[in-house]
Amino acid sequence: MAEKPLVGIIMGSKSDMPAMEACTAELEELGVPYELVIASAHRAPDKVHEWASTAAGRGLKVIIAAAGKAAHLGGVVAAYTPLPIVGVPMRTSDLGGMDSLLSMVQMPSGVPVACVAIGGAKNAAIYATQILGAAMPEYRDKIVQLKAEMAQA
Amino acid sequence: MAEKPLVGIIMGSKSDMPAMEACTAELEELGVPYELVIASAHRAPDKVHEWASTAAGRGLKVIIAAAGKAAHLGGVVAAYTPLPIVGVPMRTSDLGGMDSLLSMVQMPSGVPVACVAIGGAKNAAIYATQILGAAMPEYRDKIVQLKAEMAQA
Amino acid sequence: MAEKPLVGIIMGSKSDMPAMEACTAELEELGVPYELVIASAHRAPDKVHEWASTAAGRGLKVIIAAAGKAAHLGGVVAAYTPLPIVGVPMRTSDLGGMDSLLSMVQMPSGVPVACVAIGGAKNAAIYATQILGAAMPEYRDKIVQLKAEMAQA
Amino acid sequence: MAEKPLVGIIMGSKSDMPAMEACTAELEELGVPYELVIASAHRAPDKVHEWASTAAGRGLKVIIAAAGKAAHLGGVVAAYTPLPIVGVPMRTSDLGGMDSLLSMVQMPSGVPVACVAIGGAKNAAIYATQILGAAMPEYRDKIVQLKAEMAQA
Amino acid sequence: MAEKPLVGIIMGSKSDMPAMEACTAELEELGVPYELVIASAHRAPDKVHEWASTAAGRGLKVIIAAAGKAAHLGGVVAAYTPLPIVGVPMRTSDLGGMDSLLSMVQMPSGVPVACVAIGGAKNAAIYATQILGAAMPEYRDKIVQLKAEMAQA
Amino acid sequence: MAEKPLVGIIMGSKSDMPAMEACTAELEELGVPYELVIASAHRAPDKVHEWASTAAGRGLKVIIAAAGKAAHLGGVVAAYTPLPIVGVPMRTSDLGGMDSLLSMVQMPSGVPVACVAIGGAKNAAIYATQILGAAMPEYRDKIVQLKAEMAQA
Amino acid sequence: MAEKPLVGIIMGSKSDMPAMEACTAELEELGVPYELVIASAHRAPDKVHEWASTAAGRGLKVIIAAAGKAAHLGGVVAAYTPLPIVGVPMRTSDLGGMDSLLSMVQMPSGVPVACVAIGGAKNAAIYATQILGAAMPEYRDKIVQLKAEMAQA
Amino acid sequence: MAEKPLVGIIMGSKSDMPAMEACTAELEELGVPYELVIASAHRAPDKVHEWASTAAGRGLKVIIAAAGKAAHLGGVVAAYTPLPIVGVPMRTSDLGGMDSLLSMVQMPSGVPVACVAIGGAKNAAIYATQILGAAMPEYRDKIVQLKAEMAQA
Repeated sequence: MAEKPLVGIIMGSKSDMPAMEACTAELEELGVPYELVIASAHRAPDKVHEWASTAAGRGLKVIIAAAGKAAHLGGVVAAYTPLPIVGVPMRTSDLGGMDSLLSMVQMPSGVPVACVAIGGAKNAAIYATQILGAAMPEYRDKIVQLKAEMAQA
Repeated sequence: MAEKPLVGIIMGSKSDMPAMEACTAELEELGVPYELVIASAHRAPDKVHEWASTAAGRGLKVIIAAAGKAAHLGGVVAAYTPLPIVGVPMRTSDLGGMDSLLSMVQMPSGVPVACVAIGGAKNAAIYATQILGAAMPEYRDKIVQLKAEMAQA
Repeated sequence: MAEKPLVGIIMGSKSDMPAMEACTAELEELGVPYELVIASAHRAPDKVHEWASTAAGRGLKVIIAAAGKAAHLGGVVAAYTPLPIVGVPMRTSDLGGMDSLLSMVQMPSGVPVACVAIGGAKNAAIYATQILGAAMPEYRDKIVQLKAEMAQA
Repeated sequence: MAEKPLVGIIMGSKSDMPAMEACTAELEELGVPYELVIASAHRAPDKVHEWASTAAGRGLKVIIAAAGKAAHLGGVVAAYTPLPIVGVPMRTSDLGGMDSLLSMVQMPSGVPVACVAIGGAKNAAIYATQILGAAMPEYRDKIVQLKAEMAQA
Repeated sequence: MAEKPLVGIIMGSKSDMPAMEACTAELEELGVPYELVIASAHRAPDKVHEWASTAAGRGLKVIIAAAGKAAHLGGVVAAYTPLPIVGVPMRTSDLGGMDSLLSMVQMPSGVPVACVAIGGAKNAAIYATQILGAAMPEYRDKIVQLKAEMAQA
Repeated sequence: MAEKPLVGIIMGSKSDMPAMEACTAELEELGVPYELVIASAHRAPDKVHEWASTAAGRGLKVIIAAAGKAAHLGGVVAAYTPLPIVGVPMRTSDLGGMDSLLSMVQMPSGVPVACVAIGGAKNAAIYATQILGAAMPEYRDKIVQLKAEMAQA
Repeated sequence: MAEKPLVGIIMGSKSDMPAMEACTAELEELGVPYELVIASAHRAPDKVHEWASTAAGRGLKVIIAAAGKAAHLGGVVAAYTPLPIVGVPMRTSDLGGMDSLLSMVQMPSGVPVACVAIGGAKNAAIYATQILGAAMPEYRDKIVQLKAEMAQA
Repeated sequence: MAEKPLVGIIMGSKSDMPAMEACTAELEELGVPYELVIASAHRAPDKVHEWASTAAGRGLKVIIAAAGKAAHLGGVVAAYTPLPIVGVPMRTSDLGGMDSLLSMVQMPSGVPVACVAIGGAKNAAIYATQILGAAMPEYRDKIVQLKAEMAQA
């Protein structure tokens, strides 16, 4: 992926990777360059801080944050960047992901994280591309085409 | 608001308006031109269809959809536009808004709606502005400034 | 099935088909002619619109709509037809179908969808037949007979 | 109401009456003749049994059952009649009506109750009229007209 | 079991039998004579009515009712007998038994059903024996002995 | 109340007293002698231990335990007595009583607490009287009469 | 409070202060010196970072973190200090505090936050004092005395 | 483990042992001496009473209590000791551990139990060590080191 990344993906644990492959696959399908990092907001806070603080400067336009249980990652990243954060609440074995969802979506006033569905890795990729489409017509075209294909299927 | 709207706000019922005033107030604070329509996905589907289908063509870059209970509005709009949809699940008197939240956030594969918190009207405005910031530096600057002010407060 | 369909079944995804076989099997058992379409309210909205708008004109008397997660299908169909809609909330792997149920049943004022149980495919068929029984005595007789058989079993 | 009732309304307690006035008002608005009885499935089971067993013979075409908490009324009536039952789960002060909803909607195989939203009294009236519309064109016309009025509003 | 039954066990479906074997096993262990019937409150209401109405007259002292989903069986039996009902909410595949629990435990004023835990078949047997112990010292002794054994284990 | 108490009522806090007045009123209505104690399982464990351990010896036949939040009182009493415990989960301001209900009803194997509805103070009195009725015909007669009155009301 | 603080209290918003007064009052009652800061993990992350990173060095032994909705504060503080964190999930108007509770308690492996009850401000003070008691006998004595007083009350 | 135990682990049932091995493993990793007992608050209340009442006198500084369903163990132990209790709500097959969590965390005023996540056995060990760190620098050092290792991983 030679192009400069436009989307940054961050996830809290290596164990989130299999579920997030639908996200990277979709970004590749849509031709969106991305970078990916695994860093826990709780176990590696400085790494997250550094990565989030420099995200806009590196040219990223939108961030996808995936985490489970007490899923603080999206909020922690949001605290350090003006970029929009797309949260992906991970499914959890005990509560089905309700914990992840509420921990992500119920952000307090001033610092939003916008969430897709529990386990909505593919939709996060589509949503990030929709955001890119606000600035870059080629990405809006990709979404228009995707919608046409889905209507046909 | 002489400028051409960049954000479209749609809500399912007049009764959502008081809760959504925090959204329009914040957009005005951030200098974001918007248009606003009240139309139910169920009672006025053709109006919603027409409004959503022409949203991108009218120059809107992002849509904020607010609805309660079986909150289909965000998904119905998403079906007809390539623009990113920011969902605002309305608080409900019976289930506290859990119904609105699940109805909005759990979108199936291919057509995302990204949700902010239950009743997160102000955060929806901020998030929409963050999306605009991907294309227009002046809006990113507004967010950077907002974050600085919050850190001071 | 040479007879003109009286019941229309619509489901949001091919993946709902196995769970809905109990519905078609029961309709066949009860001798109720039906038509079946798979169309997502979000991915193929025009197809759903077209199908729903013409349903009454084609002679359908009742519609069974099955969908999962943010299950908007019933509500979207209800927006375009005066026919009664029987909603079947699909079981979901994350939240057990609570998301599907609330997304279907909590319809706002003016446009009802009446839901059977999560995964209640067979009961949807029986309920549709009960509705037909309001107009056609032979279907009420079928229900009377079914109830007698159940009491014996 | 000189006409013979087509819809039977049963509710478990006098305390459900205020919430159900939206139902009777809507039926009157739609010109649907109805009868109404207050009888608890638990405190007055014989009265419920008698009323339900004779409902079809009295010419009723559909039954609306409203109850709260462990809301068995719809299911108990359903056990004794081939008519379709529209359940209205009442809001409850402790659990918001989630108990009423699950107690009504999760009916086991063979004996459906189709539920509208928690507190969905008006929608129950509309739904009952939609069921009547399957047999009597004048009621379908009423629904078509109601939908047109809602689209205008 | 030559002795006259003191406990009546009723369950809504044959499929509840495996889960309820822990109940019959414990009653046998405690030496409590019982009778058992499978009858759905919805599919075989007359059978349930008959069985419940005659339960006290047959010498039963307490009834154990097991049912799942919209678990009305306990309440329906309670409507027809002055005997105390011990409800056993069955585990459900979709909602884990929360539906069964709320449908059983949230009985309205005047007609209680007292519930043990979801799937609490063995505890229902112990509880029924505790009730018998109020009248018959030999059953209280059995409970005292059971508690002593548990404390040793 | 000159008669020797047959029912013991224990509640975790003085603040439970207003909600439990429906219980004492109903016991008085039904002519059931009772004793009442306020003692927290957590703040006054020795008092609870002493009261529970001696309950059967004092002639009590059944215990009603009312508590809220992490409502351990019923289980703690159950650990020290062979008498049947009727649990009354108190409504809570945060979670509506779902916490109290699950803390009471989900007792592990061997030591049941049978629960009535959230806030079901009156029903606890009726249930306790039903238990007494297993041994004392006059109490069964009271229940039979209560049921007859309810059917008339 | 001339003594060097042993407990640090941090809360996410000024609006949490009234609910947390029960915490400071109890600490004062127990004679525990504390410091208090209001800082949002999302709006003022650097302030939280600074405060948490230096907490142990300032001589604090335990931290009480109170926050509501997507309550990340406890986890964010925990990421930057080896001290034990006592989380107080704030009641929320929409979901009763279930969101706060799950966001706090469901911390992933390696970085615990231990929670008291929703709104459990007073108990957080007692728990912090219990932790101090592990090192300082005078605080254990305070707890012993508190328990004795409660048993008397 | 020749050293005198500092942490006491108590669990309600042998069946909790596999899930709690992550706790004992982590304590061993961190060099924390512990003792372990299996005793049900309901089936063996005197054993629990004895163990809890003497815990502080035996030199324990903190107690880890693991239990499932109506998880009273933590509260019962807390009633008898001034030591801080770390609750571990066990996963349950029916409700995913939501019952265990609420039964543990929602302790009433005066007697806290601080909970880690559902199934959070390893985190309970870390938290107990953090508590020990308040008094013994070597344990704080262990936590500092653990955090450094996690940041590297």
